[in-house]
Amino acid sequence: MAQSSTEAKSAYERLLTKYKRIANVEKAGGLLSWDQQVIMPDEGTPARSQQMSTLSALSHELMTDEEFGELLEAAEADDPTDEQADVLREIRRDYERAVRVPNDLVEEISATSSEAITAWKEAKAEDDFETFAPYLEKHVELKRKYAEHIDPDRDPYEVLFEDYEPCLPLEQAEEILAEVREVLVSMIEDIRESDEELAVDAFEGEFPAGKQEELARDALTTLGYPWERGRLDTAPHPFSSGTQFDARVTTRYDESDPLGSLFSTIHEFGHALYTLGLPDEHYATPLGEDRDLSVHESQSRLWENHVGRSRAFWQHFLPTFEEHFPETDATVEDAYEAANQVYEDNLIRVEADELTYHLHIVIRFELERELVSGDLSVEDVPEAWNDKYESYLGIRPETDSEGCLQDIHWAYGNFGYFPTYSLGSIMAAQLFAAAEEDIENLDEKIADGEFDDLREWLRENIHQHGRRYETNDLVKRATGDDFTADEFIDYVESKYGELYDL
Amino acid sequence: MAQSSTEAKSAYERLLTKYKRIANVEKAGGLLSWDQQVIMPDEGTPARSQQMSTLSALSHELMTDEEFGELLEAAEADDPTDEQADVLREIRRDYERAVRVPNDLVEEISATSSEAITAWKEAKAEDDFETFAPYLEKHVELKRKYAEHIDPDRDPYEVLFEDYEPCLPLEQAEEILAEVREVLVSMIEDIRESDEELAVDAFEGEFPAGKQEELARDALTTLGYPWERGRLDTAPHPFSSGTQFDARVTTRYDESDPLGSLFSTIHEFGHALYTLGLPDEHYATPLGEDRDLSVHESQSRLWENHVGRSRAFWQHFLPTFEEHFPETDATVEDAYEAANQVYEDNLIRVEADELTYHLHIVIRFELERELVSGDLSVEDVPEAWNDKYESYLGIRPETDSEGCLQDIHWAYGNFGYFPTYSLGSIMAAQLFAAAEEDIENLDEKIADGEFDDLREWLRENIHQHGRRYETNDLVKRATGDDFTADEFIDYVESKYGELYDL
Repeated sequence: MAQSSTEAKSAYERLLTKYKRIANVEKAGGLLSWDQQVIMPDEGTPARSQQMSTLSALSHELMTDEEFGELLEAAEADDPTDEQADVLREIRRDYERAVRVPNDLVEEISATSSEAITAWKEAKAEDDFETFAPYLEKHVELKRKYAEHIDPDRDPYEVLFEDYEPCLPLEQAEEILAEVREVLVSMIEDIRESDEELAVDAFEGEFPAGKQEELARDALTTLGYPWERGRLDTAPHPFSSGTQFDARVTTRYDESDPLGSLFSTIHEFGHALYTLGLPDEHYATPLGEDRDLSVHESQSRLWENHVGRSRAFWQHFLPTFEEHFPETDATVEDAYEAANQVYEDNLIRVEADELTYHLHIVIRFELERELVSGDLSVEDVPEAWNDKYESYLGIRPETDSEGCLQDIHWAYGNFGYFPTYSLGSIMAAQLFAAAEEDIENLDEKIADGEFDDLREWLRENIHQHGRRYETNDLVKRATGDDFTADEFIDYVESKYGELYDL
Repeated sequence: MAQSSTEAKSAYERLLTKYKRIANVEKAGGLLSWDQQVIMPDEGTPARSQQMSTLSALSHELMTDEEFGELLEAAEADDPTDEQADVLREIRRDYERAVRVPNDLVEEISATSSEAITAWKEAKAEDDFETFAPYLEKHVELKRKYAEHIDPDRDPYEVLFEDYEPCLPLEQAEEILAEVREVLVSMIEDIRESDEELAVDAFEGEFPAGKQEELARDALTTLGYPWERGRLDTAPHPFSSGTQFDARVTTRYDESDPLGSLFSTIHEFGHALYTLGLPDEHYATPLGEDRDLSVHESQSRLWENHVGRSRAFWQHFLPTFEEHFPETDATVEDAYEAANQVYEDNLIRVEADELTYHLHIVIRFELERELVSGDLSVEDVPEAWNDKYESYLGIRPETDSEGCLQDIHWAYGNFGYFPTYSLGSIMAAQLFAAAEEDIENLDEKIADGEFDDLREWLRENIHQHGRRYETNDLVKRATGDDFTADEFIDYVESKYGELYDL
């Protein structure tokens, strides 16, 4: 560090230059992954895998480089401004995670994932949990070690959760999810017993993929997607990725289910809009990056559920839908009901509705906590899974393929990821309620196809801050409160109470 | 290096691991560039530029890393096998280029290019050479410095030429081009004076881009493009890029010129086929990379000119063309003549035919040699350009926009690149003549749409060797002779002698 005093640039500036390098390598890797998922020829994998693992190793080496750590320390000691202190807090967190875990372990987890994914695919196809069990076992063991390297004194699940949710206390997340579970289990029982029949056949028939794509493009244009900074493509598992200069959306088309692709498009629009709202001038620094997975999911779910599944949206959008599919014979109310049907007998998370979805998540959250703590052994997972489905949703899977083998996440060794899906939806309700308070006649604006105020509210309150504030601070600045489940519970009780006459 | 003796892996293996890393970073950069040229949203540039320059800086740092140099030396001293010695020769050449040029100079050239390209665009649009002249001046000066760092004792142009053509002696290239010039100048004079009128209206009319794309896909399928390792897209400046696992082709469509896009597709197919023929098992090492620009261009020109512009090809392909454009009213002979028309009054290189093209190149080659040596000053370029056009092609540009400002290459500071275009075409003739000797009834096979033997001949004689052999060796192994212009001269004299009754 002898150099630094003689150089014109401060330690902070030099650190940021190095950080930008790492971020750019990661974003390059992001494009390689987008390409692989969307347009890469089938046989491109061997080369692409090498390219991606090279970039990922380089970014790890750049972060754990001795000089990076020294510059970080020097910058922290150099009387940082408030904004600089926020940036340094974020870099310090990334740095600690990177240096504490040995490379060998990172590589072992990555190698285990490759094998586990192959085994999982086979197990799911053959309905044979035994094929997957040893890899799940191995992942649990490796991830416990991983957590121990980061902090041997804390609950390993808490440490793992922070990979996705770095600054939301697990205890708070747990309370929120428990509260939601309690409300939803009883609501779903009531719905099951309700005599109310929703108009669910508004969108039955054949909907050619080409027409659905035109509809998806119209939806994106209507919501205000800036095409000069984005694209729409298809991918087997829809996702969105990119930077504030280029945030792309993908979807998929099921010719018998036009709402599926429409809501998936709107969902990914929400993610992309967040990315696009990050400040250009902070590209490749923590102030130009997204906060965390819950906040990201709050943006996608806000647009998907609070806009896309609202009566107001269908007042505006049904005519557009009918332009593309003139044979549609539905009222706004029919469309609204079809978009909000509760599938109380559905076993599959990705096909779930806005209510049951969270019980699918809570089940995974509770099971993976017990797996990591050792309270649940891998061999007992199938039965524990089925028991929880019976207890929370009143249904019991008959096979593991439609039970504990349905999701890929554990094959990646991702423990702590699932809860962010629900936390995001719950946060979406809190943010949307605040937006409704701040924006006059938001509902009417949506019905008129005017989304500018909502986009601007989100940009100002969430997107533009990047990783400047920690999660609760960010939510508090936007809504006046810490992150809670209150607004979500009000929202589902009122919406589904009316729909199902509860 | 104390470690190496105690480790299981040899210096050669460790060097190769490091080399693969560099190659993978470069190939990742290649994909970022493909994306930028083909599908990136308009406003993605600021982020993409940072990503690309980060990767390019990293690959340079990895190559110039002290340990890399030490491993290279150790591997060279460690009694390499013949194959290893060939690999080390290639790595050594890359390494010397990388370490001898200071980073500052590389960055200055890169910065000058950015500014020069902007100035060149303006100058070309305004027909104002003065706007571009200072940047050309600067590039000449920087590239002289660049060459001096690499080897202060040699002709700087020779050193620059080796950036594109690392192992073909400049003297040999010069002789070949001089010989071709002499033949062509006189042939073109004869054609100008000939009374022979070719049937050039076979492909006049409107040809919708969508239909042209279908035709291009059919052409690629017919020639044997493996779609599971490739794609066809559109780009303003057609190119091909990728790896042996994923070699993509681009083209563009001019609705009044269906042959333009067809031949550009076939040309890029030739490039892609070379890349696809590099051995999978040597991916990201010199044995799995292409030899040089001339050899690459020999592959594209062989397919474009010796296959695509042949009578035999049109015997096979005209019915396919007519399927897509049923209003076409042409015989095979009409198509052949239209595909081989000589545009003796054309001033623009990229619109030139198979004959005049090489005089466009020779002019640039002669001028850039004099620019670099100092025999020609930048201010005198426009007049020298026009004089040479008059002398070799019998036409004189009236503006610099259609004269010395037409190409972007000098704005990039690329001196020594142009000749590889002609050298590749000349090499194509030599290789095709050898293939005709080796493959029984090649002409009939082409007329029957059977391209397997030709593809296999090229794979076996050229593609599979990667950078194993130096250019003349490679050509000699394939044809029995060093690289010469003999076959090219025979080819054009016979083909155009017949067409124009010379």
